[in-house]
Amino acid sequence: MGRRLFKELERSYGFDEVAIVPGQVTINPELTSTKMTIRDLEFEIPIMASAMDGAVSPRFAARMHEMGGLGVLNGEGLYSRYDDPYSVLEDIIATPQEEVTEFLQQVYTRPVKESLLTAQVQEIKQSGAICAVSFTPQNAKRMSPAAVEAGADMVVVQSTVTTARHESNSYRGLIFSELIGSLRVPVVVGNCVSYGVALELMETGVDGVLVGVGPGAACTTREVVGVGVPQVTATLECAAAREDYFRKSGRYVAVITDGGIRTGGDICKSIVSGADGVMLGTPFAQAEEAPGRGFNWGMANPHPELPRGTRIKVGIKAPLKQILYGPTSKTDGTQNFVGALKAGMGMCGAYTIRDLHQAEMVIAPAIKTEGKFFQMGG
Amino acid sequence: MGRRLFKELERSYGFDEVAIVPGQVTINPELTSTKMTIRDLEFEIPIMASAMDGAVSPRFAARMHEMGGLGVLNGEGLYSRYDDPYSVLEDIIATPQEEVTEFLQQVYTRPVKESLLTAQVQEIKQSGAICAVSFTPQNAKRMSPAAVEAGADMVVVQSTVTTARHESNSYRGLIFSELIGSLRVPVVVGNCVSYGVALELMETGVDGVLVGVGPGAACTTREVVGVGVPQVTATLECAAAREDYFRKSGRYVAVITDGGIRTGGDICKSIVSGADGVMLGTPFAQAEEAPGRGFNWGMANPHPELPRGTRIKVGIKAPLKQILYGPTSKTDGTQNFVGALKAGMGMCGAYTIRDLHQAEMVIAPAIKTEGKFFQMGG
Amino acid sequence: MGRRLFKELERSYGFDEVAIVPGQVTINPELTSTKMTIRDLEFEIPIMASAMDGAVSPRFAARMHEMGGLGVLNGEGLYSRYDDPYSVLEDIIATPQEEVTEFLQQVYTRPVKESLLTAQVQEIKQSGAICAVSFTPQNAKRMSPAAVEAGADMVVVQSTVTTARHESNSYRGLIFSELIGSLRVPVVVGNCVSYGVALELMETGVDGVLVGVGPGAACTTREVVGVGVPQVTATLECAAAREDYFRKSGRYVAVITDGGIRTGGDICKSIVSGADGVMLGTPFAQAEEAPGRGFNWGMANPHPELPRGTRIKVGIKAPLKQILYGPTSKTDGTQNFVGALKAGMGMCGAYTIRDLHQAEMVIAPAIKTEGKFFQMGG
Amino acid sequence: MGRRLFKELERSYGFDEVAIVPGQVTINPELTSTKMTIRDLEFEIPIMASAMDGAVSPRFAARMHEMGGLGVLNGEGLYSRYDDPYSVLEDIIATPQEEVTEFLQQVYTRPVKESLLTAQVQEIKQSGAICAVSFTPQNAKRMSPAAVEAGADMVVVQSTVTTARHESNSYRGLIFSELIGSLRVPVVVGNCVSYGVALELMETGVDGVLVGVGPGAACTTREVVGVGVPQVTATLECAAAREDYFRKSGRYVAVITDGGIRTGGDICKSIVSGADGVMLGTPFAQAEEAPGRGFNWGMANPHPELPRGTRIKVGIKAPLKQILYGPTSKTDGTQNFVGALKAGMGMCGAYTIRDLHQAEMVIAPAIKTEGKFFQMGG
Repeated sequence: MGRRLFKELERSYGFDEVAIVPGQVTINPELTSTKMTIRDLEFEIPIMASAMDGAVSPRFAARMHEMGGLGVLNGEGLYSRYDDPYSVLEDIIATPQEEVTEFLQQVYTRPVKESLLTAQVQEIKQSGAICAVSFTPQNAKRMSPAAVEAGADMVVVQSTVTTARHESNSYRGLIFSELIGSLRVPVVVGNCVSYGVALELMETGVDGVLVGVGPGAACTTREVVGVGVPQVTATLECAAAREDYFRKSGRYVAVITDGGIRTGGDICKSIVSGADGVMLGTPFAQAEEAPGRGFNWGMANPHPELPRGTRIKVGIKAPLKQILYGPTSKTDGTQNFVGALKAGMGMCGAYTIRDLHQAEMVIAPAIKTEGKFFQMGG
Repeated sequence: MGRRLFKELERSYGFDEVAIVPGQVTINPELTSTKMTIRDLEFEIPIMASAMDGAVSPRFAARMHEMGGLGVLNGEGLYSRYDDPYSVLEDIIATPQEEVTEFLQQVYTRPVKESLLTAQVQEIKQSGAICAVSFTPQNAKRMSPAAVEAGADMVVVQSTVTTARHESNSYRGLIFSELIGSLRVPVVVGNCVSYGVALELMETGVDGVLVGVGPGAACTTREVVGVGVPQVTATLECAAAREDYFRKSGRYVAVITDGGIRTGGDICKSIVSGADGVMLGTPFAQAEEAPGRGFNWGMANPHPELPRGTRIKVGIKAPLKQILYGPTSKTDGTQNFVGALKAGMGMCGAYTIRDLHQAEMVIAPAIKTEGKFFQMGG
Repeated sequence: MGRRLFKELERSYGFDEVAIVPGQVTINPELTSTKMTIRDLEFEIPIMASAMDGAVSPRFAARMHEMGGLGVLNGEGLYSRYDDPYSVLEDIIATPQEEVTEFLQQVYTRPVKESLLTAQVQEIKQSGAICAVSFTPQNAKRMSPAAVEAGADMVVVQSTVTTARHESNSYRGLIFSELIGSLRVPVVVGNCVSYGVALELMETGVDGVLVGVGPGAACTTREVVGVGVPQVTATLECAAAREDYFRKSGRYVAVITDGGIRTGGDICKSIVSGADGVMLGTPFAQAEEAPGRGFNWGMANPHPELPRGTRIKVGIKAPLKQILYGPTSKTDGTQNFVGALKAGMGMCGAYTIRDLHQAEMVIAPAIKTEGKFFQMGG
Repeated sequence: MGRRLFKELERSYGFDEVAIVPGQVTINPELTSTKMTIRDLEFEIPIMASAMDGAVSPRFAARMHEMGGLGVLNGEGLYSRYDDPYSVLEDIIATPQEEVTEFLQQVYTRPVKESLLTAQVQEIKQSGAICAVSFTPQNAKRMSPAAVEAGADMVVVQSTVTTARHESNSYRGLIFSELIGSLRVPVVVGNCVSYGVALELMETGVDGVLVGVGPGAACTTREVVGVGVPQVTATLECAAAREDYFRKSGRYVAVITDGGIRTGGDICKSIVSGADGVMLGTPFAQAEEAPGRGFNWGMANPHPELPRGTRIKVGIKAPLKQILYGPTSKTDGTQNFVGALKAGMGMCGAYTIRDLHQAEMVIAPAIKTEGKFFQMGG
């Protein structure tokens, strides 16, 4: 008797499974521009730091701005819950590994205070930086007006999985078009991984979508719940939605690959997959300036009943400037992200980020470093 | 000269090779129902504990019922062979690893006694629980009437590989339609892995089929005999049979994925593959209440001449309630199975188990945790 | 500009990448027959021991016959080169690993003596066993008449890669039809891996072909020269040739999968791929009766300039009877090969080896044993 | 809603993912010829040593010629920058690993001197060897006339990624047709990996193209920048370009696979993929005669801001003659490259390198050496 299947499965791909093909023309890296635009906000580099408490404090956000990028502040993080968030950070760092998930679960039960949030936003604005603040869908409608009032230039609405339609009986589902209508600043939402959801989110009027469910170093959603799509395929789907939506509406919505990016190579691959920018957590938590001082944890970590991820020791690696711009003596791709991006653009003959969208990419499994010979470097 | 092959091979997939795509709509986990039905028996959660002696004793079956699930008693296990099965359990646990397969081979030569079986079934019924008892095809016809007589609510007929047609000259092959006609309770049979066999089994009148050959942690059938199909593909095939059979007959037969499930993610993937429920062994053998006290062994283990699997040390991890419902501080998916299932249903916009059948899934190889950076959490 | 390739590559598969699907009908293992026929020679089990000096001595060949199988004697091995091969075996075993390849290279420079070969064949025949002797293509024409004269029942002509047409200027290429015409016993030749070569070999009149280039544990041809085809695909190709040749000629040529077989599962997979029998080296070198006393080395190992493989320590595992027939307490598939084969035949509803050819097989990558949980048994 | 992707990705393959299928005819290795031709230069073996300072000094180039191959001198390496390059080599070797990338970055800031380059070329020519010198595209036009004047027989123009069209505002892009017109010797350029770029380069009049971006042991371009194509697919594309260009123009351009080759098997696979020759770095840096004395580093390593690769300890393995011609007792494919190539040609029935282009190859993932049994040799 023949074989029949309940449904068909298609193959998806992650960063380690692809490689970029050099272009038919090459250009010198100095000729490239890495500018990214989200509605009317322009950034020198298409690189954002994730709204994780171990990565982005108000001071860190200011520093990211100086470097040409954007650090997103977690609007429901320690900075909006505690008068002295830095001493709480100390406590988290000092807690032994086996107790830390429970401690994180407890720390994040303290309620968010609007006055603290306002003060943090003002600190960022006083530094002269563009200020972006992140909220969960449950709290976005209630809390984002205060952030914008205090000066925030961009609102990020983020949960593990976000759709244009969410049903709940504990709170009224957030209606993005209403939120966007009520705020005068750009709104970026996520995370999503498929063509259909990205398209519906774009149709609500958002200015950017965050792409990625499951791939981050500090997140174990894919193991715990089984849900997730590898980043290359997720980005290819959401970028297809952006193109179709642009063709229909004339409005260009930024696609930002968020999670799982470790190297300059991963940044290049995100953009070749169609991203307009990238968001990174762990690599910035490794900066000397990061508030976590070598530790990081995700937004799904302190979930009271089903924590997904935990505090991870990421180490302190280098000053932010060196991570972004080098020079470096590291040869594993974890430093000089902008240099790597410009080198990749040069090899593909891309003057701009949108030119790099046109580059070719192949499926090419990661080089295995088994055996002595390979351990020498690849 | 051209290439020719004796036969064509199709690709199959296991849990670690797929990931669920979030839905177009999301719902809050509180809105989901995880109910499973097998003919007229209803369960709060679609989760069964395998008929393994290290996992399910009568007491454990009672506890599974309190938690909303079902623990299946091995009708040919220690509990039906020994007056004091608990002291035999002690002996198995105390035997050194290098001698244990031989010891198990010997322990299971003691004949099953109907009176002991009856007593065990009565113990489960007295606790108020739904009682399911498992037999091999060789013994099902002879022994299941006694179990039903004693109060069993469901009979499971299970061997490594089961078909509607088995030929033997040492005993007359079990005719399922006869067995079902002679018993007034639901009958679940297995294991099978293909569309054709599942369909034939359904046509005999069974109420559920168990899916899975070879994948369990305590089973090495695939290594020893080369036979087995990875669980995602096996479930996709058997669920296709259920759909076709339902369309033809109007009768809905439960498909239960059995074996190889380690995490909440695997449970979600089983259901997205078309399963109505799941059966787990090792994760329940790890419960504080499990009779094996941190050890487990399968039904094919004590085979006198060709043992497939052995006693494995699984450890004692947590109370059953925490494994099923959390709360937990574990972030690897091995606790709070029901929370994970409800979270996955929420991310896919599924109100019921049958809604979750409609979710999309992609082929996405497991994230490799090679190198330091990845070891931080994936 | 589009992509173009110099040639297309097709996918091939090895044992660890496939799994057998149970049949629509199952039968009890006692009902199965494992008989194999090569022209007029019949064997109780379709299992041969490779002509490797560490595996098959005349005494071992006699023992294999008692067990229902066939041990092939290396006609150009130590037994035909030395008056006291057992003391040379001692020396090989005693040589330190770093010097052993050089020592093997030297040991095999001693010329073969016809009188020694004759004595060894007679020893096997006096035990009552079927006697098979193996030669390289260079020496087969010259040496096989003496072996047959002495009583050999079958001649094997074997080199790493064998075709019906070989060109050389140091010796006249062996013409198989001439050799076969001059000998009254069945001739088995190999090794080959493709449809075309197998078909041409069959057309020369051979009675069996050996399938496999590169896969054995004691062989590194694939690493050194890059040549080799995984065993499942190689067997599927050669079995297709057997079918086509049988349809055309009415003569059935045995296909024997040779190399890379470690478990009962691999034996079952070979036969489902179309093999009529299998040949194993290392698993028999692990028998208590094997002359290598826990060591083994291949025929391509002592090559004077390009050795491919080396002496490997395989260990002494069990008596031959236990390896073939159990009973065993090993659960990794390395013992009770015949029990495993009969179990597999039962699960597939196959009464005979040729029935097992009809079973279905899927591509299913080996279960990875990463992480603690999996290490418990798969 | 259906799935849509921004772009399609095709699969590519590396050495470890393919295997060569033996031919329908086999020949004795003595009958094979391994000759390679680049325009009017003929070499006994199709093997070149990379222009890496740790591998090729003038003395090493002379030795490669004696062995029938070609050692390419780095025209912008230590030998053209320092009066006493050997003492600088000593310093590099003596520098601790953690400081060496910085030290390399500094060492390579010293300017190239034409007089030193001339002296090195003359040293090679005085040995009677064919002399090839390598330059980067930036310096090729300025420096190659001096090299040719001094006696160089071939010019190599090499950078990580090279195209026929490069745009820069710091220097005028090199126009290959001009360079070729101005030099009377063959010009080989690279590296490239795709059909389109290889074809355009051939149309400029070059005599050979180097194939390979990212795969070398001493290079981490693929990790740092994400750019690279596995060598089998890259060679298949560039060889397709050579065939199409030859059909159109009647001129045959040599395709040389450069990077990632570790074994004789990899050399055979390169040629079956369509290469006319191969270039190796690390395996020659392991020769007793290599100037790096057990260390090697690539041309992209000392990049001042984005080093890709580092100094790697490769060890001193054997004299060059043994690496190329054996005899050897090594069985991992790292010695007797020519013996392996001739063995592979014999197994495929190939009298010449171009005959070997016709061999068949299959996709066959590397045998994993997990578990004890496999560790014995494959």
